[in-house]
Amino acid sequence: MELSVTLTKQPKQKPADESKLGFGKIFTDHMFVMDYDPEHGWHNAQIVPYGPLEILPACTSLHYSQSVFEGLKAYRTKTGEIRLFRPTENFKRLNNSNRRLCIPEIDEAFALEALKKLLEIDREWVPKSPGTSLYVRPFVFATEEFLGVHPSSHYKFIIILSPSGAYYASGLNPVGIYVERHYVRAVRGGTGEVKAGANYAISLKAQDEAEKEGYSQVLWLDGVEQKYIEEVGAMNVFFVIGDEIVTPALRGSILPGITRKSAIELLQHWGYQVVERPLAVDELTEAYRDGRLREAFGTGTAAVISPIGKLKIDDLVMELGGGKIGEISQKLYDNLTGIQWGELADPFGWSVKVCDV
Amino acid sequence: MELSVTLTKQPKQKPADESKLGFGKIFTDHMFVMDYDPEHGWHNAQIVPYGPLEILPACTSLHYSQSVFEGLKAYRTKTGEIRLFRPTENFKRLNNSNRRLCIPEIDEAFALEALKKLLEIDREWVPKSPGTSLYVRPFVFATEEFLGVHPSSHYKFIIILSPSGAYYASGLNPVGIYVERHYVRAVRGGTGEVKAGANYAISLKAQDEAEKEGYSQVLWLDGVEQKYIEEVGAMNVFFVIGDEIVTPALRGSILPGITRKSAIELLQHWGYQVVERPLAVDELTEAYRDGRLREAFGTGTAAVISPIGKLKIDDLVMELGGGKIGEISQKLYDNLTGIQWGELADPFGWSVKVCDV
Ligand SMILES: Cc1ncc(COP(=O)(O)O)c(C=O)c1O
Ligand SMILES: Cc1ncc(COP(=O)(O)O)c(C=O)c1O
Repeated sequence: MELSVTLTKQPKQKPADESKLGFGKIFTDHMFVMDYDPEHGWHNAQIVPYGPLEILPACTSLHYSQSVFEGLKAYRTKTGEIRLFRPTENFKRLNNSNRRLCIPEIDEAFALEALKKLLEIDREWVPKSPGTSLYVRPFVFATEEFLGVHPSSHYKFIIILSPSGAYYASGLNPVGIYVERHYVRAVRGGTGEVKAGANYAISLKAQDEAEKEGYSQVLWLDGVEQKYIEEVGAMNVFFVIGDEIVTPALRGSILPGITRKSAIELLQHWGYQVVERPLAVDELTEAYRDGRLREAFGTGTAAVISPIGKLKIDDLVMELGGGKIGEISQKLYDNLTGIQWGELADPFGWSVKVCDV
Repeated sequence: MELSVTLTKQPKQKPADESKLGFGKIFTDHMFVMDYDPEHGWHNAQIVPYGPLEILPACTSLHYSQSVFEGLKAYRTKTGEIRLFRPTENFKRLNNSNRRLCIPEIDEAFALEALKKLLEIDREWVPKSPGTSLYVRPFVFATEEFLGVHPSSHYKFIIILSPSGAYYASGLNPVGIYVERHYVRAVRGGTGEVKAGANYAISLKAQDEAEKEGYSQVLWLDGVEQKYIEEVGAMNVFFVIGDEIVTPALRGSILPGITRKSAIELLQHWGYQVVERPLAVDELTEAYRDGRLREAFGTGTAAVISPIGKLKIDDLVMELGGGKIGEISQKLYDNLTGIQWGELADPFGWSVKVCDV
């Protein structure tokens, strides 16, 4: 497929102070856009200046949320290269999401080439400071002007880029989360295992209540028995229990995180015993009481590794690690970010070079 | 609140052939739009020409589906009045949806006044032919330009209008549906009991597979045990079993339909025994085998009453009513539509006059 490029005539000012980038509020000069219609399939691939879209009020995705997305990061190495971390995994997952939401699949290889081209054009936007990166957001949404509840005939696939600040400006900071007993994010047979926008709308309320109670996220339970640990807002979870590292098995309602997969592969490579299995919330309480719950951490693109310092289960508030980072959390964080920023050897070939700045 | 009105300078041609209206593809000359921001709350209420919106690619609802909607109809009576059916129920339900999705509530009375004004302006668009109506679509969606998973700071509330054809052009046509065993639409603790766009995205795949198998919809089971009947795509369901009329009890994952509520109230008014209770799919099979399953029908704004002529449960294909409409289905349909089109007495005061054409 051809990819047309129209460069902006009004380049924006790049953020001067990289310590104030935050997350997801600043966008680069360009975006990638591609259209789908039944006659042409995916076509009209273009890189154009970042700017508003014209959307009709009856656009079906504003009504029935037929949309999916991905999230990954581009990193600038000390030697001035732009690199991505396992991007083929993201486009593969995007197509899983597409299939579940009745959205026509995209050409994964072409999407990656388009992303590389876009990154090359906006390469000066990848921030330099330690811990910073350029967040990449591919997304697909339905654009047909039709109020019937039905898969749309038309779609847009867009990639936008957002320079992002260091997640841990002052070191790897433990978070507090609690087990959510009332609200449910997803259930097997639903869309929890793909990255549908719908899942996030459903999760907002619990998230909001958690923040009001001074916690940063909730720990979701399964939707069937409300008994098994699933995941956190935008992270998978791991628990070090005795000599085992346990993460909930993927049984149809958990997002299969790419950081989760990478953490499992790294841990196994190092010789740790990692087990994917159902993990009941009662087992966690027991392990804590017996002194066998040694570490807990989340994994996700945004934070890479997020140590859990406080875990509330009903009336029991567990303090984990005494405000410090667990050994395994730290080791994973150092190695994953080391590979991502091109500072450590990359035995698995996860880091993909895009261009030099 | 003030409501500014800007009339179109280019009125569109109204559809000449009302037998070809279909559903949800044609929109009237005007729409109602109102904005929300943290400083002003809901403000900037306007009626403006129907037309495209400028939306930024990072608009949070394209990513996280923070959106809700409503659906109701305006009817043109034989005496030339425009009437709505129980519109206050829709705006009440819209606010239930808003609260669940962390969207600021709207002023229900003001929204109804705005809708009436909009209908008055576009009154010529309400079609005349028997069975036709003007479909009214109020919806709210998040508009903040931010990629964090968080309730948006900005929203738009819009009402658009779409002339719709007769649902049953050739009489009350029985539909075929099957019990969905694999996919799940919603689970208690989720958003199934409100009209979140998310629920519809999640339902698309099962719906699509049903159509491919020659069924018009699926009959959803509960997400916990996958054992109890819940509802159909955009309808609640009723079963006449022996002398009882049974509809699934609202236990947190079923949309509380306004047609459902009206049907229950009418049936009780007529002296029927209506029971809202959990209804296991096995009970249906048994009732069918015993010859006690006399009628099945769906209720919803689009079709009002939709007789179920074929109900497939695994390998058992039940033929109901022998291709004919059940007595209770027909009676409900005649009376509900009679009230809606102003042809029958309205003992409950459900029909609300908007204006004369
Ligand atoms: C619900 C959810 N779970 C887990 C993750 C972690 O996935 P990944 O490691 O691919 O970023 C994410 C997202 O980014 C998520 O949104
Ligand atoms: C999921 C669902 N159930 C039931 C209904 C019926 O509700 P109402 O009678 O208010 O139209 C609808 C919608 O319109 C719906 O979308």
